[in-house]
Amino acid sequence: MGLHEEMLAIGDQAVAAARRLALLTTRKKNQILLAVADELEASKDRIGEANARDMESAAGAGLSAAMLDRLRLTESRILGMAKGLRDVAGLKDPVGGIISRWIRPNGLEILKVRVPIGVVAIFYEARPNVTADAAGLCLKSSNAVILRGGKEALESNKAIVDVFRRAGGSKGLPPHAVQLVETTDRDAIRVLAQMEGRVDLIIPRGGEGLIRAVVDVARVPVIKHYRGVCHVYVDADADLDMALRICENAKCQRPGVCNAMETLLVHRQIARTFLPMVWKRLGEERRVELRGDDAAREIVPAMRVATEEDWNAEYLDLILAVRVVPDVAAAIDHINRYGSNHSDAVVSSNETVQRAFAQGVGSAVVYINASTRFTDGGEFGMGAEIGISTDKLHARGPMGLEELTTYKYVVHGDGQVRE
Amino acid sequence: MGLHEEMLAIGDQAVAAARRLALLTTRKKNQILLAVADELEASKDRIGEANARDMESAAGAGLSAAMLDRLRLTESRILGMAKGLRDVAGLKDPVGGIISRWIRPNGLEILKVRVPIGVVAIFYEARPNVTADAAGLCLKSSNAVILRGGKEALESNKAIVDVFRRAGGSKGLPPHAVQLVETTDRDAIRVLAQMEGRVDLIIPRGGEGLIRAVVDVARVPVIKHYRGVCHVYVDADADLDMALRICENAKCQRPGVCNAMETLLVHRQIARTFLPMVWKRLGEERRVELRGDDAAREIVPAMRVATEEDWNAEYLDLILAVRVVPDVAAAIDHINRYGSNHSDAVVSSNETVQRAFAQGVGSAVVYINASTRFTDGGEFGMGAEIGISTDKLHARGPMGLEELTTYKYVVHGDGQVRE
Repeated sequence: MGLHEEMLAIGDQAVAAARRLALLTTRKKNQILLAVADELEASKDRIGEANARDMESAAGAGLSAAMLDRLRLTESRILGMAKGLRDVAGLKDPVGGIISRWIRPNGLEILKVRVPIGVVAIFYEARPNVTADAAGLCLKSSNAVILRGGKEALESNKAIVDVFRRAGGSKGLPPHAVQLVETTDRDAIRVLAQMEGRVDLIIPRGGEGLIRAVVDVARVPVIKHYRGVCHVYVDADADLDMALRICENAKCQRPGVCNAMETLLVHRQIARTFLPMVWKRLGEERRVELRGDDAAREIVPAMRVATEEDWNAEYLDLILAVRVVPDVAAAIDHINRYGSNHSDAVVSSNETVQRAFAQGVGSAVVYINASTRFTDGGEFGMGAEIGISTDKLHARGPMGLEELTTYKYVVHGDGQVRE
Repeated sequence: MGLHEEMLAIGDQAVAAARRLALLTTRKKNQILLAVADELEASKDRIGEANARDMESAAGAGLSAAMLDRLRLTESRILGMAKGLRDVAGLKDPVGGIISRWIRPNGLEILKVRVPIGVVAIFYEARPNVTADAAGLCLKSSNAVILRGGKEALESNKAIVDVFRRAGGSKGLPPHAVQLVETTDRDAIRVLAQMEGRVDLIIPRGGEGLIRAVVDVARVPVIKHYRGVCHVYVDADADLDMALRICENAKCQRPGVCNAMETLLVHRQIARTFLPMVWKRLGEERRVELRGDDAAREIVPAMRVATEEDWNAEYLDLILAVRVVPDVAAAIDHINRYGSNHSDAVVSSNETVQRAFAQGVGSAVVYINASTRFTDGGEFGMGAEIGISTDKLHARGPMGLEELTTYKYVVHGDGQVRE
């Protein structure tokens, strides 16, 4: 069987599974999730052994220490996957709710009803825990899932999916509801991304290179975020202690993630007071490398020079670009030009400035007097997230269970025909 | 300036216009719409002359009578465009509404706010009235629009867009809020469809060939419907007079449109009674060509033979495929296999059957005891539609003003940072 036929078969099986998943009750889905969680714990040795084989091959292939760390499944990470599934079982089922309802003058009753998307494909890299997390969220939202993880994690992923099959199957999980693409042929991604009618949505998770490669070839809708270039704008009317606390948190609390601040914009009226505070707290105490524009370096000459590249940079590291701006309009322009439509914050007590910022900045999430680090499914109260979207359509920001659903119209009549 | 640079410039101008449009009040947008409507009426001779030039070239190029009819702008069609804009001015502004709001335990207030999409590109064929309709809907929803109509309608489209520029501009319409792509280079569609960051959504309207060509190359999200293969399933528990009335309406009221019925599915228990009724009313009285499967032709031998191709056919004509099925499950399977996710109806008084059909059929709109012909923005109460979607994401079924918006999160804090 060639690659194309193999992927078509996976797609057909997923479509059939999606139809059966759509009919499962919430209670049944939760029973499956809990059974899989139990079995993950019971199988922790077997999963650990599979992961050890992956780690051995990866070490032999010369993967970086960071990659190896992402690939590693410790006992606590396996127990964490099980806990994640139990948490998902506790979340509200998004399927079946009535979003709106209205009656037309001719008596037709129109219901807009929340339904599963159908078949979701997740492309990701070395983290095997994504396998359990994504499968759990798709199952709870009654979607069939096609998983394509990094080849480094293949043995681990097979072991995890095998647990879904065995433990889930015994509780009524439809066959093929959770499928893993086992071929390491890179072209599988292209074939899957062009399978209109069999795949309804692709969520690629990983580096910008992977995501661009998917978007370039896809005919199926893709929801993604390329980068997180997040900003904090400190206004003339800011509480500077609050601003400093927010900046420190946004930059330093976890610098390697997509919702960390990469560029600080400071109103020129308070730059002489605020930038030395930033230099002391972030630069000296927290060892952040600051790169400023001319105006910033005039105030704090010890900063390195920021170039055009810095405004576009997603450092994911203890580095921060700093720019002095004349007003909120200039801050908005900077963010809309260089930002990534992810998360941006204003610190200001001025309501006119807050409103201008919230309306003018085009990002998925705009914060007023809070850290950008809250863009996260858990922090938003969604319980878990399947990813973060910087796209404009369907889902923006953290994507939880509800974002894994769509709607259909069900129209009730008593014989209405169109005049 | 090459094609690529020309399209990039149009995209940059659209992005700038979208930012300004997002700040317009409802009152201002309505004033613009009404001024454009007045000026369309005042310019009817000029638009008529431009259209006459298009008609002359098109007749010379040997366009079909149907194409020429779509291209023609009579006085009443021009007045119809003006009325359409006045109707849109009367519709509720979708922008700015709060979709939901919640407060987190740490005090963060999360608002999910309805916002414009940004830049919408509409690709369409010979109908110049789409130019005014699409521009009006995009303006009311605060989106900048890039219009790419058929080359046959170029002079007409230029005259219409010129009215938006002149009359709208005098009332505060941002420059470049409504742009027409004037080049007839077919590659313009590819370039526009790959302009991530400058174009946020593409809505192609036209034949399946145009739409597939867009999807094949697009990196920007596309919302579309390829085909309308709509079904009516007449159940064993149907009121057969109601069923006949619905079938006649769904097939004959306007056979050339996407929400007309193309295949009739009949439960075998009532086929002997119902198919002769269909033959008499649709076949004999309304001159519909019926093409049946073996079981149908056993009952009405005068039917032609239906082949596998007929189940996939979008006739857009007075032709109907007919199949006898053993139960609602078989009807659902047929529809999910051959249908186009558009609009499908069940006629039954049995609530179990109704529920199974509504849940099992995957289409955007499912009707219970009503004609498929109601899938239309006006009939749904949206006032007007920019198109119909058979996709799963963002919008399904008729797309009105609300479907031309998306959302963002605005999060209010008082200094919250992440622990």
